[in-house]
Amino acid sequence: MRVTVWNENVHETTEADVAERYPEGIHGAVASAVTDHHPEARVRTATLADPEHGLTEEVLAGTDVLTWWGHAAHEEVDDEVVERVQRHVLAGMGLVVLHSGHLSKTFRRLLGTTCNLNWRSAQDRELVWTVDPTHPIARGVPHPIAIESQEMYGEFFDIPAPDELIFISSFSGGEVFRSGCTFRRGHGRIFYFSPGDQAFPVYHHPDVRRVIANGVRWAAPAGEREIPVLRNRPEGWFE
Amino acid sequence: MRVTVWNENVHETTEADVAERYPEGIHGAVASAVTDHHPEARVRTATLADPEHGLTEEVLAGTDVLTWWGHAAHEEVDDEVVERVQRHVLAGMGLVVLHSGHLSKTFRRLLGTTCNLNWRSAQDRELVWTVDPTHPIARGVPHPIAIESQEMYGEFFDIPAPDELIFISSFSGGEVFRSGCTFRRGHGRIFYFSPGDQAFPVYHHPDVRRVIANGVRWAAPAGEREIPVLRNRPEGWFE
Amino acid sequence: MRVTVWNENVHETTEADVAERYPEGIHGAVASAVTDHHPEARVRTATLADPEHGLTEEVLAGTDVLTWWGHAAHEEVDDEVVERVQRHVLAGMGLVVLHSGHLSKTFRRLLGTTCNLNWRSAQDRELVWTVDPTHPIARGVPHPIAIESQEMYGEFFDIPAPDELIFISSFSGGEVFRSGCTFRRGHGRIFYFSPGDQAFPVYHHPDVRRVIANGVRWAAPAGEREIPVLRNRPEGWFE
Amino acid sequence: MRVTVWNENVHETTEADVAERYPEGIHGAVASAVTDHHPEARVRTATLADPEHGLTEEVLAGTDVLTWWGHAAHEEVDDEVVERVQRHVLAGMGLVVLHSGHLSKTFRRLLGTTCNLNWRSAQDRELVWTVDPTHPIARGVPHPIAIESQEMYGEFFDIPAPDELIFISSFSGGEVFRSGCTFRRGHGRIFYFSPGDQAFPVYHHPDVRRVIANGVRWAAPAGEREIPVLRNRPEGWFE
Repeated sequence: MRVTVWNENVHETTEADVAERYPEGIHGAVASAVTDHHPEARVRTATLADPEHGLTEEVLAGTDVLTWWGHAAHEEVDDEVVERVQRHVLAGMGLVVLHSGHLSKTFRRLLGTTCNLNWRSAQDRELVWTVDPTHPIARGVPHPIAIESQEMYGEFFDIPAPDELIFISSFSGGEVFRSGCTFRRGHGRIFYFSPGDQAFPVYHHPDVRRVIANGVRWAAPAGEREIPVLRNRPEGWFE
Repeated sequence: MRVTVWNENVHETTEADVAERYPEGIHGAVASAVTDHHPEARVRTATLADPEHGLTEEVLAGTDVLTWWGHAAHEEVDDEVVERVQRHVLAGMGLVVLHSGHLSKTFRRLLGTTCNLNWRSAQDRELVWTVDPTHPIARGVPHPIAIESQEMYGEFFDIPAPDELIFISSFSGGEVFRSGCTFRRGHGRIFYFSPGDQAFPVYHHPDVRRVIANGVRWAAPAGEREIPVLRNRPEGWFE
Repeated sequence: MRVTVWNENVHETTEADVAERYPEGIHGAVASAVTDHHPEARVRTATLADPEHGLTEEVLAGTDVLTWWGHAAHEEVDDEVVERVQRHVLAGMGLVVLHSGHLSKTFRRLLGTTCNLNWRSAQDRELVWTVDPTHPIARGVPHPIAIESQEMYGEFFDIPAPDELIFISSFSGGEVFRSGCTFRRGHGRIFYFSPGDQAFPVYHHPDVRRVIANGVRWAAPAGEREIPVLRNRPEGWFE
Repeated sequence: MRVTVWNENVHETTEADVAERYPEGIHGAVASAVTDHHPEARVRTATLADPEHGLTEEVLAGTDVLTWWGHAAHEEVDDEVVERVQRHVLAGMGLVVLHSGHLSKTFRRLLGTTCNLNWRSAQDRELVWTVDPTHPIARGVPHPIAIESQEMYGEFFDIPAPDELIFISSFSGGEVFRSGCTFRRGHGRIFYFSPGDQAFPVYHHPDVRRVIANGVRWAAPAGEREIPVLRNRPEGWFE
């Protein structure tokens, strides 16, 4: 399994507290979550500052699952790269979108909606409850996952009805949020998972790390397979 | 629109506080919610103690939407009546299942699962958030509906993935619950709505009453229509 | 109900047989289908050649449901108009996408996938079978609808799993197609219906016309309503 | 993976042509399909005539996936065994229901609907088209699977909307059918697959055998896992 962990890497390089919280960057924390649970995976990282944001055609062609974290610089992501990522997802590459990545161009383009939500950064406690306990992404996590300090993300979350709703969170303020959702788009699988923020050490939380690793495994394409192709045969199906 | 409001009517007739809270019975409170919003509806009530629980073949044949409240006496509902209700739902009668009706024989038979959930009766505050704002059942209700005192119903709620998830609730204890769900079964529409309890005056809450009335309207069949029938024609479709 | 019927109107103005088949244009045929079934509706038409394709901010602000037919000139539709239509759908305007509109910029942008499919224009017979008989869009149509001559549209149809699958078609060549699908996006409802082609008189077929009229009615927003708004309150939900 | 292949085994023991077509019984053909693709699986068979139909508490407790074929003797299956199977599915055992098993007590009880459909036994050609190409159950099968002689199963198929629709079939007569569907019920996964009949050698068809093997693999529970349990804690979630 070949995983590319993408991060805009802006907060970490401009804010001391974030750099201290995530000394290897958020991408470093996410990458180690994947590696810890899937030692066999080949994990690399890429950031906004890299040429072509580190997401060249060649990199994506060699990626089974891409994870995405962005927040402060969504609009700086090049439209050409966004289209490239979308094309690869539709062709079968898995995509795991984390937290504020809900407003990334890529996610909005794949879902077609505004992907807006309510939010508040006030050290809420988040509880992540499992509503689809048979789903492989929920494997091995407690019910609920308790996150002591977290940004609040609340409904209404303007997404299409997810294909599968796995987690629902509550917050100290009383809000709720569909915090773990899957979507199939073309031949690709998408998992959105909201827990995680630059201002809180959520990506060091062992249960959050397990969910991310589970999500990456789930989103990976299942080996070589025959893709149905367009066949505009004049004679109909008959062979 | 012909509505039959069913209630086991046990708490009201055996517990003084419930009788005081719901002097017309829970069925009376539910019936008036429907009538207040749909003055043109023909609403009648039926209870466990009635012959055949008030749900004869004739009554059901003249019912567009049946609402169901039960709690203490699920097992006393006659299996023949349960099958009759199931048959009418599959043939197109709407069904609105309220609160503890989640464990009624009828609901469990139509859904196929245990319909179990977590619960606690400790005067939680319940907030009911809308996650499908275009749905007619969500029309006219605030975001969130706030219910000061209520029994807690929490996940995991063992139901099939609903066709539409309209409301998610949070509780003072931090729990979440899929509190407004729709299911289509056969030619019938089912709406489950959890807020409401014999121990709290929830059925007098104006927003809860509006949701129940919206749900009844939504579940009603859309006039006469052609039902696809079984046609085992030896010659295939061709006319 | 205010309906705007959009048509690129290219085939009708450049091909004699299409002009003869649809003397009022495909938009004329679609508009009359709506008017025949909903005499109270205020229906207007707009085409590619109109300034801003006839879809100004003012027109869309006064539209409850937009229907879309395009085929030969998808790429000539201005991106600004596409974004405007998307914005209005997300804000609650209904959208009915017809036949080759599956490749329109608007539909692809709202769904996020390629929306490709298999096809063949060889006078197939199409049978349209109802698989959701309680759906209002299926009201009053036979099972199946039989269309004597039609272009074949076949799977794999690269769309997200629809929220509701209402119709499945078969073709003389043995192919199948998900020919009637609904999607909710933001506060808007989308109905895709594939039967209909410039080369065949399908939009004069009474059952096809009824489905289009049903779809328009279904997609219309349900009056004024409170839209949940973003509320990033520092103090949490509590009032 | 421990698989139990159940078959009523009535046609094979009472009709010479069926016995000739399936000398090891339909259960023998299904069992070998699983073994061929999953040599590591521990596969056993059970039939109606066995004590408790071969489905004792002990057998089910040692079963990861149960496959079900029945047709002529649905009503002879003991209600106690049906409840036992349902209980195990809800607790996590996978279930693969084949062909005429759609009318088995077990399937109807888990789905809650009549599960009726249209049918015709007239040597139709069935084409099985993939509409969810990323699904593991569709792996390795052609698009379409062509079955030369088969019983026709047609819509309307009275099931709840499936969680995932994987295959749609067409037949020589022009009918369509949702021939591959998944449902999650409780902690168990259910796959329904219609191709296969006692009167045709469909269970010897290599693509049909592959789909059955894929379905068994998909339905198997994912190892030991923590099941969310009911916790009616008086103090709320807080630890």
